[in-house]
Amino acid sequence: MNSIGRLFRVHIFGESHGQVVGITIDGCPAGIALMADDFTTDIERRKAGAAGTTPRKEEDMPEILSGVFNDTTTGAPITIIFRNNNTRSADYEALRDTPRPGHADFVLHHKFSGFNDYRGGGHSSGRLTLCLVAAGVVAKKILSGISIEASLTEADGNTDIEAAIAKAIEEQDSIGGVVSCTVKGLPVGLGEPFFDSAESVISHLVFSIPAIKGIEFGAGFAGTKMKGSEHNDAIIDAGGKTQTNHAGGINGGITNGNELTFRIAVKPTSSTPQAQQTWNNKTEQVESFAVKGRHDLCIALRVPVVAEAAAAIALADLLLLHKAYK
Amino acid sequence: MNSIGRLFRVHIFGESHGQVVGITIDGCPAGIALMADDFTTDIERRKAGAAGTTPRKEEDMPEILSGVFNDTTTGAPITIIFRNNNTRSADYEALRDTPRPGHADFVLHHKFSGFNDYRGGGHSSGRLTLCLVAAGVVAKKILSGISIEASLTEADGNTDIEAAIAKAIEEQDSIGGVVSCTVKGLPVGLGEPFFDSAESVISHLVFSIPAIKGIEFGAGFAGTKMKGSEHNDAIIDAGGKTQTNHAGGINGGITNGNELTFRIAVKPTSSTPQAQQTWNNKTEQVESFAVKGRHDLCIALRVPVVAEAAAAIALADLLLLHKAYK
Amino acid sequence: MNSIGRLFRVHIFGESHGQVVGITIDGCPAGIALMADDFTTDIERRKAGAAGTTPRKEEDMPEILSGVFNDTTTGAPITIIFRNNNTRSADYEALRDTPRPGHADFVLHHKFSGFNDYRGGGHSSGRLTLCLVAAGVVAKKILSGISIEASLTEADGNTDIEAAIAKAIEEQDSIGGVVSCTVKGLPVGLGEPFFDSAESVISHLVFSIPAIKGIEFGAGFAGTKMKGSEHNDAIIDAGGKTQTNHAGGINGGITNGNELTFRIAVKPTSSTPQAQQTWNNKTEQVESFAVKGRHDLCIALRVPVVAEAAAAIALADLLLLHKAYK
Amino acid sequence: MNSIGRLFRVHIFGESHGQVVGITIDGCPAGIALMADDFTTDIERRKAGAAGTTPRKEEDMPEILSGVFNDTTTGAPITIIFRNNNTRSADYEALRDTPRPGHADFVLHHKFSGFNDYRGGGHSSGRLTLCLVAAGVVAKKILSGISIEASLTEADGNTDIEAAIAKAIEEQDSIGGVVSCTVKGLPVGLGEPFFDSAESVISHLVFSIPAIKGIEFGAGFAGTKMKGSEHNDAIIDAGGKTQTNHAGGINGGITNGNELTFRIAVKPTSSTPQAQQTWNNKTEQVESFAVKGRHDLCIALRVPVVAEAAAAIALADLLLLHKAYK
Repeated sequence: MNSIGRLFRVHIFGESHGQVVGITIDGCPAGIALMADDFTTDIERRKAGAAGTTPRKEEDMPEILSGVFNDTTTGAPITIIFRNNNTRSADYEALRDTPRPGHADFVLHHKFSGFNDYRGGGHSSGRLTLCLVAAGVVAKKILSGISIEASLTEADGNTDIEAAIAKAIEEQDSIGGVVSCTVKGLPVGLGEPFFDSAESVISHLVFSIPAIKGIEFGAGFAGTKMKGSEHNDAIIDAGGKTQTNHAGGINGGITNGNELTFRIAVKPTSSTPQAQQTWNNKTEQVESFAVKGRHDLCIALRVPVVAEAAAAIALADLLLLHKAYK
Repeated sequence: MNSIGRLFRVHIFGESHGQVVGITIDGCPAGIALMADDFTTDIERRKAGAAGTTPRKEEDMPEILSGVFNDTTTGAPITIIFRNNNTRSADYEALRDTPRPGHADFVLHHKFSGFNDYRGGGHSSGRLTLCLVAAGVVAKKILSGISIEASLTEADGNTDIEAAIAKAIEEQDSIGGVVSCTVKGLPVGLGEPFFDSAESVISHLVFSIPAIKGIEFGAGFAGTKMKGSEHNDAIIDAGGKTQTNHAGGINGGITNGNELTFRIAVKPTSSTPQAQQTWNNKTEQVESFAVKGRHDLCIALRVPVVAEAAAAIALADLLLLHKAYK
Repeated sequence: MNSIGRLFRVHIFGESHGQVVGITIDGCPAGIALMADDFTTDIERRKAGAAGTTPRKEEDMPEILSGVFNDTTTGAPITIIFRNNNTRSADYEALRDTPRPGHADFVLHHKFSGFNDYRGGGHSSGRLTLCLVAAGVVAKKILSGISIEASLTEADGNTDIEAAIAKAIEEQDSIGGVVSCTVKGLPVGLGEPFFDSAESVISHLVFSIPAIKGIEFGAGFAGTKMKGSEHNDAIIDAGGKTQTNHAGGINGGITNGNELTFRIAVKPTSSTPQAQQTWNNKTEQVESFAVKGRHDLCIALRVPVVAEAAAAIALADLLLLHKAYK
Repeated sequence: MNSIGRLFRVHIFGESHGQVVGITIDGCPAGIALMADDFTTDIERRKAGAAGTTPRKEEDMPEILSGVFNDTTTGAPITIIFRNNNTRSADYEALRDTPRPGHADFVLHHKFSGFNDYRGGGHSSGRLTLCLVAAGVVAKKILSGISIEASLTEADGNTDIEAAIAKAIEEQDSIGGVVSCTVKGLPVGLGEPFFDSAESVISHLVFSIPAIKGIEFGAGFAGTKMKGSEHNDAIIDAGGKTQTNHAGGINGGITNGNELTFRIAVKPTSSTPQAQQTWNNKTEQVESFAVKGRHDLCIALRVPVVAEAAAAIALADLLLLHKAYK
């Protein structure tokens, strides 16, 4: 349930307001240089602090508990934890009777019979994406020679990201966005026949990221308006290079050696400063309420590095599978 | 690789032009009435023959080889096969040197070192969706009280499906479409924390269907242009009913008891009557060629029942998982 | 449930008195020569007919339904079925009220709420070992350069197998035995850390064979009576060759390059001609009854080739995993 | 690789001389009372200190990092770590060139290309059984009403355990033993058809415990010397109670409601004070050497609680699977 992958496997754990969030990475090859510093860049990219992100200060220093010896992976499982230092649980006490719209409060309460750690989303908090990012750093090392780059290409339907953020701050309402990701340097042949297509495995991971509601590969939904003669990518050399790339680098679920591209839809942050309606379990009626606390107005700003991590985890697994058959 | 599911598990096999295509369904509860007739409706819905679909005649009679005794499931694996009667392998011989654009010919040849059954797409053929449909029939029986309905809501970007098909026939070029699916009657709580979110599991299965290049849940990509105060669905009763349904019935990866909705992007059929460019491995240059044989101009017409099956397989698995914890 | 393996995966299906028994082998590399004749030797070795085995005539011709093209594996799942021709279901009708001691009748009835195919053991019949043997033939091809040989080394506690069989026939009572298996030519390094030790994976498969009640590797139970200085195998060259082999070729769950050896305990055939006591669900009292039908007095005679298959399936999987990390 | 289980899943990590050893338990139902004190009894049972065990002092205090809120399981993954305080890595430096006979030094070095943490066995150390014990405590809570009891019933082939230990201390050589385990109160029906038989799942886990070289269920190897009429357990009531229990509570891989019994063979501790022969990679010849450091002369003394844990983990998983189908 909290695991994914067939050879490169990750197991996630922890809660937003518990002691730690963490991840165990199993199936990482031995002999890869790895130290805490390697995580800095990607963790910084995910951090809050910019306009439109939460003012919470998260230290986010990885502690590598196992699987690394002399700054090198050993082949044993790598467990990495992040302490939770800066939490204000009291902010959440008042919300127990009023499940926040857009959040998982209501479904978690029902699924776990009220025993879930409700503070700050608990195990379902966006804070756990920090663990995905950490696993992504390791995955990227396996994908040597392959680059993965994601960025926020739309906010609130607008390509001028800064203006959209400024407007959101002015209007004090949260906004969504679109993150685009490109992977270069992949070999031909990643992706398994039928159920573990490259799209299947990547989308499975991407939809694990909170707030994601859509994904499309290559031309995606726009491709449904093309003719076949237009959408098909002409193959122009023996290595499979194509003239266009409407397929997003994947045919029949298998990478074709061209750039793998996908776009993901990030819904507006559920925690908005605006007043909203929800059911109050105590008064047994619909009531207006406002989410307090420090939240991102545009969570999509922090998603690119997480999307890269999701793609990297998926592709590292497919690459190791590929190697088993070569 | 050719399996999916944790409790309700399916294993697919077969090739388009081999003896059979088939599927084994493991983890189906004992005591469910099941006979060949149960498959008729959904298999007919998938069949070719309408305008815009291939004139190939596929008999598609299921043979239940195991797991059913006295017209009732036994709890043992259910294997269902479909014979391939109406194949013209010769049509494909000529294509070995010219990988068809948009198809998996090139990647399969590389992934399997040239040993793949290249006839009609082999194991990657759309014909295998017949097996998904069969598994979907069984899954739907497990989902008693839950309805799953999908339909083609756009063809070539147009909501007038008939007109779009007529135009495609006239222009002799293939087209794509959008299939919309709605699931009613789901309990609160399906979907596992983090990696096996309802969206993850459904998308994993949906991207196993050939020609799918995008999926969105609820408001999806359109939702990225909404404000949080607009996108959030107000909860209006103790059972979790919401006023709007931008979340598509899923919060935090878990079903919330409202209608689960998703839309999928079906690319235009790769086999188009139009001339196309591809690499010829013999002449070692780019050449023009045309796909022969009988093909669907709008494969999207046949996708709805397959999408229902994918959703049913995913949800039957999540429902059985749910039962283990109740 | 009816599947095993991580890369080399097998899915078993079918019932003793249904239409077929069969197996799907997923994850077999492409490019391996495979035809029906390859199965003959091992299937013959498993066959009934010798003294102490059932006089039932089983044709046991494999039909390869998928995954093989031009007598070569394609990389797609290989499904092999065996028709059930020679069954007398009526023999079993009378037994529905009297669960046979030693058999799974009682537990299957309860586990599957009475819906199980009770004829001849149904899906739990020893006939399904035919499918294991078929998968073993494929696995052995992957293990090129590695030999696996098993034989019956004890029957009824006696190393003179023929005399023990003759006595069982004379006394008209079933007997058990011990099967010993040796694998030569394995590389150093098969077996995964902790849970997927070579012993774990092999024992998991071996205990899937009906009638197996024990397994020991190397010196096994006898080794518990040795001193450490005696049991430890001195390493005598740089390749890891050891002077003795009390470890059975496995240290810390990982193959050490020496012969891998194990012994398995096969209980006496549950179906014995002798009268036995069991509960009669109709009369609601303990009653005497005798099993009719044609049965093996010493099922252990047919186990060696099945044990080889179990070992081969386990080791082929571990070998492919090993390759992914080299 | 370092994970096991289908619903009740455990993921193990850590090294003997690293920072921690730990385990993540996924799939534990919400609402179970759990606090650090619950682990005390079983952890004490595993501890060193008695005659025949190592004089190393291990504090072994569990730190529950996640998955527990208000002393109750939440349904999220439970991660438990144990700090390694009392390690003397220098003891092991000298051994790098001389792989210890009976140990995994040689195979780990080859499998992980020399990158493994070689100190004290690293990730393959017996210290990781502490994590199994912790997971066993949680598993036992799920198995409410079911008792699991294991004890050392033979040491050095002798049922007088104390005398055998005294002799080993006097002779300064390590010894092995046999651990017997009995599970009472199991329902009918645990164990899955074919590959996940109760014996398969239990043996898979038991062979994960270092030093285990054999397992037998019920009469086991002794049963191979019985006649069928003697071995078969007569069923004497409608609930499946049997007069004898040679099957060890399992028929056809499925629990039959009687006591589940198994015995496991524990080899003599590989680290013996006696001088031994091994290959020296530096001098490139076989040399005599003696293992230094503090070690158990009879590791089997510490195995019973670990065997209980292995059985509990296996049975908790099968019980949850069972519930999904009821």
